[in-house]
Amino acid sequence: MEQFVRIEDVLEQKLQGQELAEVKRILYGPETSSLEFSCDASSLANEKKVELRGYKFPCSEEQTRIPRLVRVGVIQNCIVRPTTDSVLEQKNAILQRMGDILEIAAKCGTNIVCFQEAWNMPFAFCTREKQPWSEFAESAENGPTTKFLQEFALKYNMVIISPILERDETHGDVLWNTAVVINHNGIVVGKSRKNHIPRVGDFNESTYYMESTLGHPVFDTKYGKLAINICYGRHHPQNWMMYGLNGAEMVFNPSATVGGLSEHLWSIEARCAAIANNYYTFAINRVGTESFPNEFTSADGKPAHKDFGHFYGTSYATAPNGSRTPGLSRTNDGLLITELDLNLCRQVKDHWGYRMTQRLELYGERFTEAAKPDFKPQIINGN
Amino acid sequence: MEQFVRIEDVLEQKLQGQELAEVKRILYGPETSSLEFSCDASSLANEKKVELRGYKFPCSEEQTRIPRLVRVGVIQNCIVRPTTDSVLEQKNAILQRMGDILEIAAKCGTNIVCFQEAWNMPFAFCTREKQPWSEFAESAENGPTTKFLQEFALKYNMVIISPILERDETHGDVLWNTAVVINHNGIVVGKSRKNHIPRVGDFNESTYYMESTLGHPVFDTKYGKLAINICYGRHHPQNWMMYGLNGAEMVFNPSATVGGLSEHLWSIEARCAAIANNYYTFAINRVGTESFPNEFTSADGKPAHKDFGHFYGTSYATAPNGSRTPGLSRTNDGLLITELDLNLCRQVKDHWGYRMTQRLELYGERFTEAAKPDFKPQIINGN
Repeated sequence: MEQFVRIEDVLEQKLQGQELAEVKRILYGPETSSLEFSCDASSLANEKKVELRGYKFPCSEEQTRIPRLVRVGVIQNCIVRPTTDSVLEQKNAILQRMGDILEIAAKCGTNIVCFQEAWNMPFAFCTREKQPWSEFAESAENGPTTKFLQEFALKYNMVIISPILERDETHGDVLWNTAVVINHNGIVVGKSRKNHIPRVGDFNESTYYMESTLGHPVFDTKYGKLAINICYGRHHPQNWMMYGLNGAEMVFNPSATVGGLSEHLWSIEARCAAIANNYYTFAINRVGTESFPNEFTSADGKPAHKDFGHFYGTSYATAPNGSRTPGLSRTNDGLLITELDLNLCRQVKDHWGYRMTQRLELYGERFTEAAKPDFKPQIINGN
Repeated sequence: MEQFVRIEDVLEQKLQGQELAEVKRILYGPETSSLEFSCDASSLANEKKVELRGYKFPCSEEQTRIPRLVRVGVIQNCIVRPTTDSVLEQKNAILQRMGDILEIAAKCGTNIVCFQEAWNMPFAFCTREKQPWSEFAESAENGPTTKFLQEFALKYNMVIISPILERDETHGDVLWNTAVVINHNGIVVGKSRKNHIPRVGDFNESTYYMESTLGHPVFDTKYGKLAINICYGRHHPQNWMMYGLNGAEMVFNPSATVGGLSEHLWSIEARCAAIANNYYTFAINRVGTESFPNEFTSADGKPAHKDFGHFYGTSYATAPNGSRTPGLSRTNDGLLITELDLNLCRQVKDHWGYRMTQRLELYGERFTEAAKPDFKPQIINGN
């Protein structure tokens, strides 16, 4: 399955004309156009072996607001060095690689960029070993990864969202799964943490960190209002919804997920969230297969092994009207750039009326009831 | 677009072998197998020009519970007579047609059947005319449509879910958009009403009826716990979620929706609900193009016209693990039968752990806050 590169390649090779157009209309919604980049950007991407794709979501002009065009980049990357190398060797190699990709993003005029979950390390939580993996953790505010990125953000006038394993030194050295938000001036404006922690497959993250206590922050940046729903949080519609209620226009879903577990869900959840909440979503998945020094079991009856399975990449973006871009490949480092108009969020709200018809106070009350130990479900005997 | 019959036909004609298998794996998830029916059933379906398809969702055996196998049928149908005929002629023609389709369903061993929204009438709400369309409304408990179906339910030992326009005589003759639940003994065990009413496109339903005050009832029947989320309620994840919290194992989404508006959303929303809530969902859409006696406008700048556009059918089912069946056609009356094991719901809950990790009390509190007039969104200044 690892060799299968991209579903869009197959459809475009095998279907033609009106038939291809119909299949795309049903599968992808209102058509996106391709973004063209400078020779400079394309040749650097070629040289660095980064898959570079760009799409533009259409949006109507308004009479009383000017378009609010933003270019959003999402990056999927393999680890660079084997997991048997030292922590610093591994991390620095990924940082250097990301510096190259950020340069491509800058040449493409990218305003906001977001990386995959825990992007500067292997996704080692499958091992349940605390060492050396906890040593990848850093301060969100002034760790080396954040400092590294602040220079790029300032130089390129770019908002950077950096999902890392956080070491919270001011609260007893605990770990968190955190996204750091650095603004276009290179200032750390805040952070968001993973609200829902998985206990499934090799995702043994509940061994390492707890659920966020920071709520559902939305960051009002130069390039629009954005929020971060980290990985497993995408399975929880109420989590997506709360970012929308706080005013998000773009929600990023930095993830790490593997083929056997979730690939048939990947195109559904982040896209459904864009539709339901009338904002743009960006689903970003790690890519490649990561092997670890010591074997571990997966609680699935199979023998001990050393790898996590294949992270299938396939990062993509969805507009508030449900139109989506094709995905990046299942196999390579990639940069997906989407040009979008933030005005579309309110246009879609006016069109579909979900916020007006959502009956929020009813659900606030019912969810509160349903969470109580003595909750009585509304069941009618139909026998 | 009306001529394009079925996306699965195109994929299966143009792709082959491993490539087809990979595309299906990514688009449809864990594979369903085909259900075979008796010659008797198939030849009746042929004779009556009803597209008959059957699929079986796989499920693991358990040690302490026996399988709870159920066959669920969903039916999509065109109107039979022109909308210029009398109300009774139109309705009786559809009832007779449905009697034929129910006979096919019975020959296939169907335990539960659900029809499309307002199945016994044209979807006339586009017109904004109160007459003669309000005359299609009936008592849920003892109207002619319910009485007609009670006989079939008893004869075939079948639970029937019948979405109709309801006339509520005991509360001032008002109208509701209602699904009547008739059990396998032919008894009306209750009803569920549409929780969210659209104000979009030609869906002028807010002119005719209001939001349900009946909550999110789940009906505990001989064949499992079921609920009904009518049409536009599928755009509201919190609505799907509340049926799950009340214990539903199967949620039906009887709908009426047209090509230009929602076709690219159709495969996403009901499927995402099955994934997020660990129950089976059934998306059922009306089929065909309906023309009305008097012209009406659609508030889209286009000239007045007499038809609602093309209802694209494409009814399908999704399992709690996100596996879905192919859809019925975009053009014909059809009966989709799914054999499923209700035990899969709890198996998927145990696997993914969403209910355990959903933090319901947090969201109950936040939604309640967000509904208040003085709500302050959680926004961090990132400039």
